[in-house]
Amino acid sequence: MAAAPVWSVDPRTGKQREQVAVEATVQDVDAAVRAAHGARGALADRGVRSAFLRTAVHRLEAAKDRLVETADAESALGSIRLSGELARTCYQLRAFADIVDEGAFLDVIIDHPDDAAIPPVPDLRRYKVPLGVVAVYSASNFPFAFSVAGGDTASAFAAGCPVVVKAHPDHPALSELVAGVLREAAAEHGIPEGVLGLVHGFEAGVELIRHPLVAAAGFTGSVRGGRALFDAAAARPVPIPFHGELGSLNPVLVTEAAAAERAEAIGTGLAGSMTLGVGQFCVKPGLVLVPAGAAGDGLVKSLTDAVGGTEAGVLLDHRMRDDFLAGVSERAGLPDVEAPVTPGAGGEHTVSAGFLTVPAERLAEEGAYDVLLEECFGPVTVVARYESEDEATAVLSRLPGNLTATVHVSAQEAAGEGRGPDLLAALTPLAGRVLVNGWPTGVAVAPAQHHGGPYPATTSTSTSVGGTAIERWLRPVTYQNAPEALLPPELRDDNPLGLPRRFDGRLER
Amino acid sequence: MAAAPVWSVDPRTGKQREQVAVEATVQDVDAAVRAAHGARGALADRGVRSAFLRTAVHRLEAAKDRLVETADAESALGSIRLSGELARTCYQLRAFADIVDEGAFLDVIIDHPDDAAIPPVPDLRRYKVPLGVVAVYSASNFPFAFSVAGGDTASAFAAGCPVVVKAHPDHPALSELVAGVLREAAAEHGIPEGVLGLVHGFEAGVELIRHPLVAAAGFTGSVRGGRALFDAAAARPVPIPFHGELGSLNPVLVTEAAAAERAEAIGTGLAGSMTLGVGQFCVKPGLVLVPAGAAGDGLVKSLTDAVGGTEAGVLLDHRMRDDFLAGVSERAGLPDVEAPVTPGAGGEHTVSAGFLTVPAERLAEEGAYDVLLEECFGPVTVVARYESEDEATAVLSRLPGNLTATVHVSAQEAAGEGRGPDLLAALTPLAGRVLVNGWPTGVAVAPAQHHGGPYPATTSTSTSVGGTAIERWLRPVTYQNAPEALLPPELRDDNPLGLPRRFDGRLER
Repeated sequence: MAAAPVWSVDPRTGKQREQVAVEATVQDVDAAVRAAHGARGALADRGVRSAFLRTAVHRLEAAKDRLVETADAESALGSIRLSGELARTCYQLRAFADIVDEGAFLDVIIDHPDDAAIPPVPDLRRYKVPLGVVAVYSASNFPFAFSVAGGDTASAFAAGCPVVVKAHPDHPALSELVAGVLREAAAEHGIPEGVLGLVHGFEAGVELIRHPLVAAAGFTGSVRGGRALFDAAAARPVPIPFHGELGSLNPVLVTEAAAAERAEAIGTGLAGSMTLGVGQFCVKPGLVLVPAGAAGDGLVKSLTDAVGGTEAGVLLDHRMRDDFLAGVSERAGLPDVEAPVTPGAGGEHTVSAGFLTVPAERLAEEGAYDVLLEECFGPVTVVARYESEDEATAVLSRLPGNLTATVHVSAQEAAGEGRGPDLLAALTPLAGRVLVNGWPTGVAVAPAQHHGGPYPATTSTSTSVGGTAIERWLRPVTYQNAPEALLPPELRDDNPLGLPRRFDGRLER
Repeated sequence: MAAAPVWSVDPRTGKQREQVAVEATVQDVDAAVRAAHGARGALADRGVRSAFLRTAVHRLEAAKDRLVETADAESALGSIRLSGELARTCYQLRAFADIVDEGAFLDVIIDHPDDAAIPPVPDLRRYKVPLGVVAVYSASNFPFAFSVAGGDTASAFAAGCPVVVKAHPDHPALSELVAGVLREAAAEHGIPEGVLGLVHGFEAGVELIRHPLVAAAGFTGSVRGGRALFDAAAARPVPIPFHGELGSLNPVLVTEAAAAERAEAIGTGLAGSMTLGVGQFCVKPGLVLVPAGAAGDGLVKSLTDAVGGTEAGVLLDHRMRDDFLAGVSERAGLPDVEAPVTPGAGGEHTVSAGFLTVPAERLAEEGAYDVLLEECFGPVTVVARYESEDEATAVLSRLPGNLTATVHVSAQEAAGEGRGPDLLAALTPLAGRVLVNGWPTGVAVAPAQHHGGPYPATTSTSTSVGGTAIERWLRPVTYQNAPEALLPPELRDDNPLGLPRRFDGRLER
């Protein structure tokens, strides 16, 4: 049987651009994983790792024009957005290089013997070591930042783990280009090119998660695909950590006082957030609880005006377009659901943004309206109008886990008056990031970032963005009574590398 | 149908002591989990949590005589060992109280807005929050330290999580007593008694892992039972973290030089470690690679003398005794396997310690001898005699994951000569704790401890002993642009609680 071709497709026309590769066979996957496994030693030195990450940045920046052009041809996201995303990707790689150099992620803990402890404590020295080969499943909607050189790859390299990427079929040509750049950067530091494997094809992705030498996986995509891979990871003879970001509704609560104070600004802000990137963000606000009554009406009016003025856009691929249109149609067809601006088919390959409204009480109990509590990828959101705080709370209590939860409060509530202080506590169980008076789109790369949340937002408690993402790919190991001469320098008393650590109970920084 | 009775059994006689309880029904499990869920708020304050843990220590110490007597009647482990184990359990609870007070586990990270970042960073403040109700599956072999008031319960309470314990059937009376003490301690601090649920019965354990309000689980036990629960946790509509410690062979490598230097001491030390607690430790050394030749012969002679002089002991229950005898018999029946001291049936309810020898080359490839690479609970170990370093390495490379890996080296190797420096690196992939010139039994409670390892040693990368065990029961959450008035005190700029944190990138302690 001939290998299945992998085509690069232009979503603006639906036409095949070029054949990029062929789908990986079982043997191809095995070869990629073994090559990655063989490259572990080359990543063992932290200095080499950070230098490699910085070289990758320089080479990605040097290749910018070619990369952005290819990315746009395959994603239709536009060169402005894509240039920004590439800059973000480079910023992220640099941030991880800094994290590698600092070494706090090693979590060094040293205890000297203590006979007063029960039982007595011997000499114990702990730090973290890389898990091994990491499988990365890239996303459609961020061809740079959540793909071949994206967050999972950057954090895995930073941790000392080689990577095999399962390319997203929406941007295979870009995936090959970026992989080539990363391999050139690796070669510059004597790291074998196998440190970054790239495989195409659905079956290859399934093979990858089952491979005995794959030690962990990162995934960004749909609930369906992510859950299937999560299940496969858990069903292995040796189960492995699977860090999957599967889906999120990203609820927003607008308090009565906030709507009364600035209905127009909130409506406009919401329109911007829900239509950004043609609504193709994991953190798009998909359910907005807005008070019934005049202030809420004002917000809906402002949203209507702003969304109505939004240009139609091209979705990432035609299957996504079909799913979007079907999802909107199913939701809009429910009784009492209205569409002040109807989302739907634009020109031949575009879709137009819109939003739906529904009385919040329809969502307060299980039933036909539950589809409104599921993510619908694309430029649509659901505005649920609530009659009372209890009604809003009842809807929030029914939500599955989310990446983000947002509340818009008035100036007085922000100052701690009224129900202000309780709002953060009420939203915390819902999500991994809780925003006040902002919009969830835009996920900053920063030490304090957390991009993850209760299932199905993520399948683990870890983050895919921000400094602590490196923790995904590490495991602790403790050495007991190892003589100084045998210890790695990271664990020596005299701390030759100047690492932050916990030393005999005290934090040293 | 009448509820199944739960009996306390004396392993020294096999006779039922008393009926302690009845097995929990589905309704009982549901009630226990809901009561625990309802107690979350009472654990929210860190000061209350640490005070509760300290009160638990005082009350356990006050009840010591009754607790140890009951534990001995159900486990036959003897009052000296059990008094020590209770002291360890109290030490552990106190250690977690200190950890709660210090607050470093909250992992506070604060970033102020930074417009120079790509994309710009808003105000982000991250810390960790408790996951919710934790299910704890207690172990047979540590009636105190890995049971109702054991490590998982202590770390879960410390994290702010209520607990429902599935009691081990080997010590149901003790489980009830300890649960009563913990509830009294809780009541003293206004915490509802539901904060510690206790259920008996195999089916109750399965129900528990499936309950929608259970947020995470800790398990110590067999590969078979642990894997079944791990699979159930992963198969839930909302999967949850399952931290299971399933089994470990705990390999030991004795170098040629070490055997030449101190064959007798190593043989005696090994005898002590493998027979401690009648061989019923997760970290019992189960495979010992000893060089062929005179030095190794000396080691085996010393081991023979020491093990031969060990008294017969009572195992924790009669099923365990049957499994031990069957396991020994299967292993001893293999060609070329010898038993310098034959392990097996002692008196009516006892077993006697012993060990087997085998040429290491039999273990270097897949085959009938693979059973020797599986854990056999009880006082037996396998000494594999190797002809060359390569042969020893080949055996080590075939091992599944372990809690511990140990190497005995000579004084010169310890000083960094010969193969010394490579040995730690070679053993690190095998285990979560690597020991030099020691024995793995005895797991100290300390900040740097790591009790866990590659599967099947544990099903996650976390530890069940030591300060970082608290990380099992937490998830991060980040607040974006939350006004100071709405923030919890832990995340305020002025740091009113004096927490260690990362502040605008800098580590502050």
